[in-house]
Amino acid sequence: MKKPSILKPPFTTRFKAAWSVLALTACLSVGSAQAADQGARHHAKGEYDSVTAIYEVVEGDELIVIGERFQVPLDTLKAENHLTSDLIKPGQKLTITTDARTVSTQNKTREASPTQAQAPEHTPDDPLSAWNDGPAKQAIMAFVKETTTPGSPTFVPPAERIATFDQDGTLWVEHPMYSQVVYCLERIPAVVKAKPELAQEEPFKTVLSGDREAIAKLPMDDLIKILAATLTGMDVDEFNAEAEKWLATAKNARWNRPYTDLTYLPMQELMEYLRAKGYKTYIVTGGGQDFVRVYSESAYGIPPEQVVGSAGETKYGYRKDGKPFLTKEPKLLLNDNNAGKPEGIHLMIGRRPQAAFGNSTGDRQMLEYTKAGDGARLSMILLHDDAEREYAYGPAQGLPDTKVGTFTQALYDEAQKQGWIVISMKTDWNRIFAFEEGQD
Amino acid sequence: MKKPSILKPPFTTRFKAAWSVLALTACLSVGSAQAADQGARHHAKGEYDSVTAIYEVVEGDELIVIGERFQVPLDTLKAENHLTSDLIKPGQKLTITTDARTVSTQNKTREASPTQAQAPEHTPDDPLSAWNDGPAKQAIMAFVKETTTPGSPTFVPPAERIATFDQDGTLWVEHPMYSQVVYCLERIPAVVKAKPELAQEEPFKTVLSGDREAIAKLPMDDLIKILAATLTGMDVDEFNAEAEKWLATAKNARWNRPYTDLTYLPMQELMEYLRAKGYKTYIVTGGGQDFVRVYSESAYGIPPEQVVGSAGETKYGYRKDGKPFLTKEPKLLLNDNNAGKPEGIHLMIGRRPQAAFGNSTGDRQMLEYTKAGDGARLSMILLHDDAEREYAYGPAQGLPDTKVGTFTQALYDEAQKQGWIVISMKTDWNRIFAFEEGQD
Repeated sequence: MKKPSILKPPFTTRFKAAWSVLALTACLSVGSAQAADQGARHHAKGEYDSVTAIYEVVEGDELIVIGERFQVPLDTLKAENHLTSDLIKPGQKLTITTDARTVSTQNKTREASPTQAQAPEHTPDDPLSAWNDGPAKQAIMAFVKETTTPGSPTFVPPAERIATFDQDGTLWVEHPMYSQVVYCLERIPAVVKAKPELAQEEPFKTVLSGDREAIAKLPMDDLIKILAATLTGMDVDEFNAEAEKWLATAKNARWNRPYTDLTYLPMQELMEYLRAKGYKTYIVTGGGQDFVRVYSESAYGIPPEQVVGSAGETKYGYRKDGKPFLTKEPKLLLNDNNAGKPEGIHLMIGRRPQAAFGNSTGDRQMLEYTKAGDGARLSMILLHDDAEREYAYGPAQGLPDTKVGTFTQALYDEAQKQGWIVISMKTDWNRIFAFEEGQD
Repeated sequence: MKKPSILKPPFTTRFKAAWSVLALTACLSVGSAQAADQGARHHAKGEYDSVTAIYEVVEGDELIVIGERFQVPLDTLKAENHLTSDLIKPGQKLTITTDARTVSTQNKTREASPTQAQAPEHTPDDPLSAWNDGPAKQAIMAFVKETTTPGSPTFVPPAERIATFDQDGTLWVEHPMYSQVVYCLERIPAVVKAKPELAQEEPFKTVLSGDREAIAKLPMDDLIKILAATLTGMDVDEFNAEAEKWLATAKNARWNRPYTDLTYLPMQELMEYLRAKGYKTYIVTGGGQDFVRVYSESAYGIPPEQVVGSAGETKYGYRKDGKPFLTKEPKLLLNDNNAGKPEGIHLMIGRRPQAAFGNSTGDRQMLEYTKAGDGARLSMILLHDDAEREYAYGPAQGLPDTKVGTFTQALYDEAQKQGWIVISMKTDWNRIFAFEEGQD
């Protein structure tokens, strides 16, 4: 179902505009990829508790739906209640142990590290134990309290509790280059295998050579061809299967781990905490909507329908056997960056968020739009100032400049002026990744 | 915040394409609006039961969130538990009476009508009591059973349970013209009041004259001006406020009731039933996404983020005081009709529905796309064959032809061939509107 010529798709100016920056900056930084993990590990102690409820089954209940409702896996629910099948009956009492404070079972125990400069809160009920006590953590706790406590003058009804999160650099690592661009480059061999004549054509020839310097020098039009060849022209189901396969096997060079392991634990805790408080969490990313939707549920607990991203058109058609399918077209519908973020939020969600989280100039308008709403609003922006444990880039606050996830001094100044909270990765987070556990 | 000239907006061909059909057909039918309710009332007896659960409060619980979870209003929850405030504490036991089978309290009692040809199921637990027993009702029950019973070979995990509903003619009355077009025409006096010079310009002059024959003859370009003047050029919040105000006061001529009273009770029951079974219900409408989102929550229990519709672009900007806002632009982003429906579903939801419901040729591709998925899929299409209680139009099955909600014989034949279920309004529904109660 590939398009006849992937080299001459009907590109629009807007498609170019969106992806060129992404591709160019990312490809330029290929040469700077770090092959080994050079960051030190810092851990902190946190304890978890759990609470138990007795739930009486009502007519029409299903065990799996009860599990979803309380965010308890089906297997756990069955084991806890000594059930050998999924059958339940009205009146039956189920013991449900919920623990909204854990992101996954692997976080249930933690080790202390004497090297951590600032001690985290050690209370057993701390839902944000990877956060050090400080202005950022306090702002989150205060915001949640005032928007979810009945009777509070800035109480927000559950239906209106929307929180939006940028992804690259806010929820997971974006340096030295966006994971999706790595995907595009690594897909080229398969694209060429399906169309061997491309092996001698540019830019495929250069990408196949593995010559990083040459790849970094590819002209704009060639980069667009790479994106079009790897992200468009196929059935949406085919794309999903390809992306899923890549994510299951590809590894980040610095940490030698799957990309989906490189999500930030403090942000996972924050999303889990907000959800436990009735917030609906959304990803609002400049990255490809279809790409992020492939792993959003397993990586963040966010279903595909709660991912807003840069999106291309699709085209409805029929296979030879008459079955309908959708083809990904090389025409951009939503450039979900900058002003495109609040516009995309209006299109896909239809409500102004109560809280928004970002890390770069591409998030400015989303943070402005959120903070400008009535009542209590929270806009937070993450500063990557930890070269040791992750990366350090700005150029705000004298940090090194970058083309990937730029955080300018002007943005930093706007944050101060508008009352957004700057999160310092170095100071506010006592732990960055879930996998750090037990490594020191 | 109006645009300088609403008469010369940068219309695109696609904007024209989407709205012209809607406007033209609707305006042509202005003259045929029926001023009085000529339909007879048919009621049927149905009894309701309720089930009670004891819920033990866990740490972090909020009364309002518990209410949302069990779909019990906060006031009901408080009254039932003799609470004078919203404060609850861990370990506290709450009595929760759930009734997933009622759409609203007004449906709790019903009267029998001896004139009803086909008797409905009278079992107390019937979640679809406004449906007569027959192939349509049986297909729904069988589909829900096989997709939600653990161990069923076609079991669907809760996260994948998506059901999409067309709106006009599927969830509420669309004849003699779409409610949104009535809104546009009725907004013209306010538009002219804000810009008095328009009073002498066409098409505003004609609309203000109230001359239905002349309105029906307005050329295409004039109709587009009406839509642009009433649906674009303003702040999104301003549009929402205007639409909300209109919906609260405008009345349908035939039934002399607010438009939001004209939703179909059997479809309300169906959506409620699907939600109780873990399905997420979406509206996928050719109508304006922003317009439908204004009332979707109160009319159908569907939040704005679960409404996919024809959508225009918005533009991010700043007021004089520096506050950011979004302006509705006269440029169509998604024409959510025909092939645009599955394309819109992919864009906004990202999963193929398990079940889809429509009533006209504009729903064909959505029904095809849904039914073509793996496992158990349900595609249903409503035939308006009840001139007495609502309207009768096709031209399928020899019914009168129409430009609003056309259901062709070819579509009827495709339904038979593809295994979609045709719902006969006359035969399958023993009651159409919730307000019919007690009128006979």
